[in-house]
Amino acid sequence: MAAQSDSSSSEAGSYQGSTNRDAGHATRRIAQWVAATTWRDVPMVVRHEAKRALINYVAVALAGCTDPTVDKAVRTYQRFSAGLSAGVIGRRERVDMLNAAALNAISANVFDFDDTHIPTIIHPSAPVAAALFALAQTQPISGEALLLAFVLGVEVECRIGKAVSPEHYQRGWHITSTCGVFGAAAAVAKALGLSAQQLVWALGNASAQAGGLVETLGTMSKSLSVGNAARNGLLSALLAADDFSGPDAPLEGTRGFVRVAATAPKLDALTDGLGHEWALLSNTYKPYPCGVVLNPVIDACLDLRRDARWRLDDIERVELTGHPLLRERTDRPNARTGREAQVSAQHAVAVTLATGLAGLAQFSDDAVAEPSLRAFGARLRFIDAAAFPLEAAEVALVLRSGDRVSRRIDAARGSLAAPLADVELAAKLRELAAYGGWGVAPQPLIDTLWRFDSETDAATLMQLACVN
Amino acid sequence: MAAQSDSSSSEAGSYQGSTNRDAGHATRRIAQWVAATTWRDVPMVVRHEAKRALINYVAVALAGCTDPTVDKAVRTYQRFSAGLSAGVIGRRERVDMLNAAALNAISANVFDFDDTHIPTIIHPSAPVAAALFALAQTQPISGEALLLAFVLGVEVECRIGKAVSPEHYQRGWHITSTCGVFGAAAAVAKALGLSAQQLVWALGNASAQAGGLVETLGTMSKSLSVGNAARNGLLSALLAADDFSGPDAPLEGTRGFVRVAATAPKLDALTDGLGHEWALLSNTYKPYPCGVVLNPVIDACLDLRRDARWRLDDIERVELTGHPLLRERTDRPNARTGREAQVSAQHAVAVTLATGLAGLAQFSDDAVAEPSLRAFGARLRFIDAAAFPLEAAEVALVLRSGDRVSRRIDAARGSLAAPLADVELAAKLRELAAYGGWGVAPQPLIDTLWRFDSETDAATLMQLACVN
Repeated sequence: MAAQSDSSSSEAGSYQGSTNRDAGHATRRIAQWVAATTWRDVPMVVRHEAKRALINYVAVALAGCTDPTVDKAVRTYQRFSAGLSAGVIGRRERVDMLNAAALNAISANVFDFDDTHIPTIIHPSAPVAAALFALAQTQPISGEALLLAFVLGVEVECRIGKAVSPEHYQRGWHITSTCGVFGAAAAVAKALGLSAQQLVWALGNASAQAGGLVETLGTMSKSLSVGNAARNGLLSALLAADDFSGPDAPLEGTRGFVRVAATAPKLDALTDGLGHEWALLSNTYKPYPCGVVLNPVIDACLDLRRDARWRLDDIERVELTGHPLLRERTDRPNARTGREAQVSAQHAVAVTLATGLAGLAQFSDDAVAEPSLRAFGARLRFIDAAAFPLEAAEVALVLRSGDRVSRRIDAARGSLAAPLADVELAAKLRELAAYGGWGVAPQPLIDTLWRFDSETDAATLMQLACVN
Repeated sequence: MAAQSDSSSSEAGSYQGSTNRDAGHATRRIAQWVAATTWRDVPMVVRHEAKRALINYVAVALAGCTDPTVDKAVRTYQRFSAGLSAGVIGRRERVDMLNAAALNAISANVFDFDDTHIPTIIHPSAPVAAALFALAQTQPISGEALLLAFVLGVEVECRIGKAVSPEHYQRGWHITSTCGVFGAAAAVAKALGLSAQQLVWALGNASAQAGGLVETLGTMSKSLSVGNAARNGLLSALLAADDFSGPDAPLEGTRGFVRVAATAPKLDALTDGLGHEWALLSNTYKPYPCGVVLNPVIDACLDLRRDARWRLDDIERVELTGHPLLRERTDRPNARTGREAQVSAQHAVAVTLATGLAGLAQFSDDAVAEPSLRAFGARLRFIDAAAFPLEAAEVALVLRSGDRVSRRIDAARGSLAAPLADVELAAKLRELAAYGGWGVAPQPLIDTLWRFDSETDAATLMQLACVN
């Protein structure tokens, strides 16, 4: 992709002109760009999206912070914590910054309720934000500096993800973990003010630590790799600050990460449009704690429930029309756990039609155990329609009376075409604070994040997010 | 491979009969075998090899413990160490057990002078031994229990390595790191007395943490993944002891490690001959701190030097005959660092002919800088001979007088066909203690390890190996 002629005149702009000149030095060019980019180089719309992403991050961390996975991780990680400098969102415990980075990334991702970068399906914010806020609790960083580092970390993470997508995830690598460590490393390196050479080393140190398997999804093990992404990214940058050195081309080298992680990597994705195209503008936030393909289904069911002139018993069957992938991913009539219910169309349809709600409580182990919901799921019929995009679906209720009511959703809430509004993100934070973050007042968090670029001490956010 | 009819009658023996019955449950079968196997099930020759591997492990850790990579890692890891329960071999510092596991694995592997499992080129001992000895400093473990856990950890590590070899390393994954984490997890789980189910979880927790790239070799970054293998393997088992659960089939599952790590994995290698064939019997120890293909070259040069009637200046040229891979891997006429010299035939030939020595000092940055050695390297000629096996080579000196003297080595010292003798391994430990382990007396270490199965407290070894 050619550099655009209206490039900014900032220092960072100088790297935009060389996009195709030396594709063999992607790591160095990324490092130089990260080192040189300032807050002035970040467009307003990207700055605002960074705040939205952080609101969503804090929201989902509050939701997850009391999950049994987090309880167990806290118990063991506390044994290996040097000091009490950093907090765990929504909890009383204090740990060192490496463990805080790990635990807060785990909380934010444990339900897969965190954000989704559409081109890669990376959950980008958890590893990057958790690492940065842990650092901010041990040395002074302004809100603006943290936001800038966050924007750049997410950019690096998602560009690496694009370079290895879709093969990498399809092969079985948990892309949020494998790419997250680079994002956290780049972000912390930026926040520490490292040189371009040190940034190359930080990415090299991260390359040695990238890991995580799709096989672990739905189990506690998954959380280890997500926590490691934040922890080891932070560690990679701290080591690079001490000139702990790595390879020259940890990304594009012959056996660098993107070549090892994909047989046909898209090397151009690493640097094309750097400084012009921003990964955060392809970021989305889930309205419901479910697999993203269920979003339009739940939208339709909630909409039908709102005007309901029927009771659940009046419904003879439900016809669900959508892309074949919807059926393939969510035809799960016998979900036994909340985790399984999050990818079960049967449960999602039954519980939203029955309750008019689609929050974490509706996708809990308890909700799944409800016999009437389990029975209702048998009334669901899938109708494949390849012409439907993934963010669309139609739900038709065929009543015993013979009547038929239906809703078609073309762009689900939370998709790029119908993003959650700012007020909806704030509401999500309030709702999830009530769900999992007992003792944390949500409004000060929301107020602080909307004006975070004028916050002098980024650690303020953590003081508000943790329980005293 | 069919189960052998002369299987032992121990508890562990019961798993041997089912080798081919359910190849789909490899992780579970490995876990059951590890949980059930006792010291009585381990043949004498394997027990002895375990002691040899540990002598070599301590030797190379002493060699590496003052390398700048280790200095830097100690500096940062100390900041994040909870307490001082465990030692760093050859050094004064005390750290917590997770950091001790990492640092001692880093020391032992930093020069790639540690052991080599021939079928996989895994350096098997460093991650497993470092994790076990760190654990042993925090809770009582007998020498016998540690040896048993070590044997089983190495077995699991190398079987996983065989299942993904040779593709995995060729692709660019640093197999010592990616498989080491499983070995450390299995070993620590055994030492902790975990159940078979918990062992499955330990391996699942390890699967989420497997990583490391060949691209990082020769840089400090490599050491991070080797340290992580020990640290995170230990962590995986500690978490599993608290029922931190993982997938059912982290190895052979659809997106389990061996399928993700290789497109055509050898699943049978995971369990074939379990309890009959032992990875430690394919383990080797390097006599020289070099790439293993240089071993016969150095053997020949040292042999020529021993009977030398010539001076270096008398040599017009050196003809080096060997397998084409010897040339491909070691034709490096302008090595600038000790690390590069370790894979430079030019330097290896020059320095061994000049000094009659081939230790760490001969492959240091200082040795490489010696002008006469650099000049001499230009006199080397490679002669490809595909019929030569990798452990063979011939070195011919063509003198200015017209005379020609040559030595052919058919099985290099340290190869499986010509293993280092026990006394040579002990001598290696003494030599390397003198090189890097100032303040550590080697003989008590050697004596303790040869009778380690009767040692009541395995931590004794660490008390002798660390500086007080």
